[in-house]
Amino acid sequence: MKSMGKKVAVIRREHFNAAHRLYKKGWTDEQNASTFGKCSLPNYHGHNYELEVKVTGAIDEETGFVMDLKLLSDLVSMHVLEELDHKNLNMDVEAFRDLNPTAENIAVVIHDLLRPHIESSLDLFIRLYETPRNYVEYPA
Amino acid sequence: MKSMGKKVAVIRREHFNAAHRLYKKGWTDEQNASTFGKCSLPNYHGHNYELEVKVTGAIDEETGFVMDLKLLSDLVSMHVLEELDHKNLNMDVEAFRDLNPTAENIAVVIHDLLRPHIESSLDLFIRLYETPRNYVEYPA
Amino acid sequence: MKSMGKKVAVIRREHFNAAHRLYKKGWTDEQNASTFGKCSLPNYHGHNYELEVKVTGAIDEETGFVMDLKLLSDLVSMHVLEELDHKNLNMDVEAFRDLNPTAENIAVVIHDLLRPHIESSLDLFIRLYETPRNYVEYPA
Amino acid sequence: MKSMGKKVAVIRREHFNAAHRLYKKGWTDEQNASTFGKCSLPNYHGHNYELEVKVTGAIDEETGFVMDLKLLSDLVSMHVLEELDHKNLNMDVEAFRDLNPTAENIAVVIHDLLRPHIESSLDLFIRLYETPRNYVEYPA
Amino acid sequence: MKSMGKKVAVIRREHFNAAHRLYKKGWTDEQNASTFGKCSLPNYHGHNYELEVKVTGAIDEETGFVMDLKLLSDLVSMHVLEELDHKNLNMDVEAFRDLNPTAENIAVVIHDLLRPHIESSLDLFIRLYETPRNYVEYPA
Amino acid sequence: MKSMGKKVAVIRREHFNAAHRLYKKGWTDEQNASTFGKCSLPNYHGHNYELEVKVTGAIDEETGFVMDLKLLSDLVSMHVLEELDHKNLNMDVEAFRDLNPTAENIAVVIHDLLRPHIESSLDLFIRLYETPRNYVEYPA
Repeated sequence: MKSMGKKVAVIRREHFNAAHRLYKKGWTDEQNASTFGKCSLPNYHGHNYELEVKVTGAIDEETGFVMDLKLLSDLVSMHVLEELDHKNLNMDVEAFRDLNPTAENIAVVIHDLLRPHIESSLDLFIRLYETPRNYVEYPA
Repeated sequence: MKSMGKKVAVIRREHFNAAHRLYKKGWTDEQNASTFGKCSLPNYHGHNYELEVKVTGAIDEETGFVMDLKLLSDLVSMHVLEELDHKNLNMDVEAFRDLNPTAENIAVVIHDLLRPHIESSLDLFIRLYETPRNYVEYPA
Repeated sequence: MKSMGKKVAVIRREHFNAAHRLYKKGWTDEQNASTFGKCSLPNYHGHNYELEVKVTGAIDEETGFVMDLKLLSDLVSMHVLEELDHKNLNMDVEAFRDLNPTAENIAVVIHDLLRPHIESSLDLFIRLYETPRNYVEYPA
Repeated sequence: MKSMGKKVAVIRREHFNAAHRLYKKGWTDEQNASTFGKCSLPNYHGHNYELEVKVTGAIDEETGFVMDLKLLSDLVSMHVLEELDHKNLNMDVEAFRDLNPTAENIAVVIHDLLRPHIESSLDLFIRLYETPRNYVEYPA
Repeated sequence: MKSMGKKVAVIRREHFNAAHRLYKKGWTDEQNASTFGKCSLPNYHGHNYELEVKVTGAIDEETGFVMDLKLLSDLVSMHVLEELDHKNLNMDVEAFRDLNPTAENIAVVIHDLLRPHIESSLDLFIRLYETPRNYVEYPA
Repeated sequence: MKSMGKKVAVIRREHFNAAHRLYKKGWTDEQNASTFGKCSLPNYHGHNYELEVKVTGAIDEETGFVMDLKLLSDLVSMHVLEELDHKNLNMDVEAFRDLNPTAENIAVVIHDLLRPHIESSLDLFIRLYETPRNYVEYPA
């Protein structure tokens, strides 16, 4: 069958809601405010994060799948959404104890949460929308 | 000119980001958790709220406008976004001091913030998306 | 609290996938083809139906909800998606045994499946997207 | 068949591209600039207009349609898009010879172009997006 | 002229509707059900497939086009949509006689249907949305 | 901190409205019409251009940003939107004096307007939607 073994990317889109503020420990409030503006306001704000997880590899000859997107969705729920959804990223999430929860850093954290659970023969790529007009991609 | 005086609705879409939690004062934590689930987690979560403001009235013979959408956008910025954007609704916004910031209640609050600034001959309607899949409309 | 008792609409968006063909029993194949075109091809085609369910009523003083959207989502899953998702509407769904599964008819069927499970004091409205460019609303 | 005769709305979404400027004949350039801002710049700008045409009526017992959306799409192409698509509204379209092509006025013009071609027993409603954040509805 | 000869990608988005089921010939019904879940139900389900076709090459000095998107749209209609739109992929489409119509395989089939009709100096890339939340890309 | 120095892309989405026509100087009207069709009509048409600007580089250790998206947005406003928004591309924009304003050419022009204002260590990529179904990417 002609498509077998061809390299394809499969993408699953998920979402989660979280609160955060941009804030660098060790900086004064003035430094934080001048660098991060409204995003640094002390009582947090939040986002509907839209998350795309892309897995790239060869089509499996048996199933016609690179990876079952239902399984990928379950892995994202278990290892990413369970950790981040409806949370305060600064206060509730271990990975951001000393890391500013910018979209860039959140994308790297999500990648690292998920990477151990995806077969090593498959490539992993993260796209994260913080708003409909601001988003990031990792690795780039 | 044939369209003059015809009744038309004009709609402006804006957005803001905010943190909140659903929480009824006077209820125990268990009551809040059983009613509001993850939305009641203590450290807040957040949303990209998409807000549609609809104003209905007759087309003005001079301008061809029901209302200048640039002006409507400015009024929303000044009276609504200034109050809610990048805020913690529970902690920072007077209107939610004793009011649970459900999407329903936020829509009513936005309506009441904006109503005094729209000409009384024009009708006002609010549509508020809390997530791409959950939204509310007021008045209904 | 000022928003209590105000009438608000709450909307939940869900989706399902199904196959169908437009076909009137008792008509010849030629009649069906000339009326329904490609939509009448014998081996079925399908759609990602996007479904919006709107419930309208007064804000509850205790919760600030018209209706918990999580509960509404569960009711739609149980009474609508369970019946229609990943099905062949013509072959698998009792309601379409003698009813052409046009978008109009599907919207009425969904309304009637859900109506008994929504409190009678609340109004129910269905919006159904058959494609991003074709959709229907009931009641109108 | 239970859905027969029920009143349903069917909506078809189309789009067209056009140039325009907001400009009131008889006003000075200064008056136009102060009222319409950048929208009044002399060499025109343009939009991807997204047009929704809603037709409301009873479900036909034979077809299960309120109105065939393929037919509605053809009528919009013939009577609206043929007139407006890839045109300069101010210079090329008779209806705007003495009418400022605001979104409000364009919606009324589209309604009046289409109304004679829709059965009189059916209601007609126009929603017109000038940008993703600015749109109008007629009748309201 | 400074942009001439620069390499640019042009993308055209199309859509089609089709029915399918995921099913591997030679497997038992139990094997198919356990691997493909609801997607394997015997009477088919369907999707609104959104298809993006990307063609990459140098800007032509005469036209300013990499490739006329109107022509690309016509080629997609003729060689892809004609074959897949409003069809049952398993029953009606030769390419899936022995190939499971997963999104991955459909993307490869679309690529191979179109490749002979695109100039060999141009690269071809396919993105296929099976649902708004599940999509694939080929080649990856 | 584990994400520091990792390479990430950050994307900002903006939009502008403009009029244009496709037209090659030195060609006859017939040549222009036969190559560019309705897009060559003499009185211009227009679009809501959606513009995505992608900047790729290492995460800054201090801020957690690749680049502040607020700053990127300001640079796009100042150097791109100021030049193109609400303009007639053919008549008002120096870059298109001798260059056909195809989407391909507009993307290259936008890239060249912005490139001098982005740090040289960062990569720059442009995605430009002329309509929701037609878009281009540069460099490809």
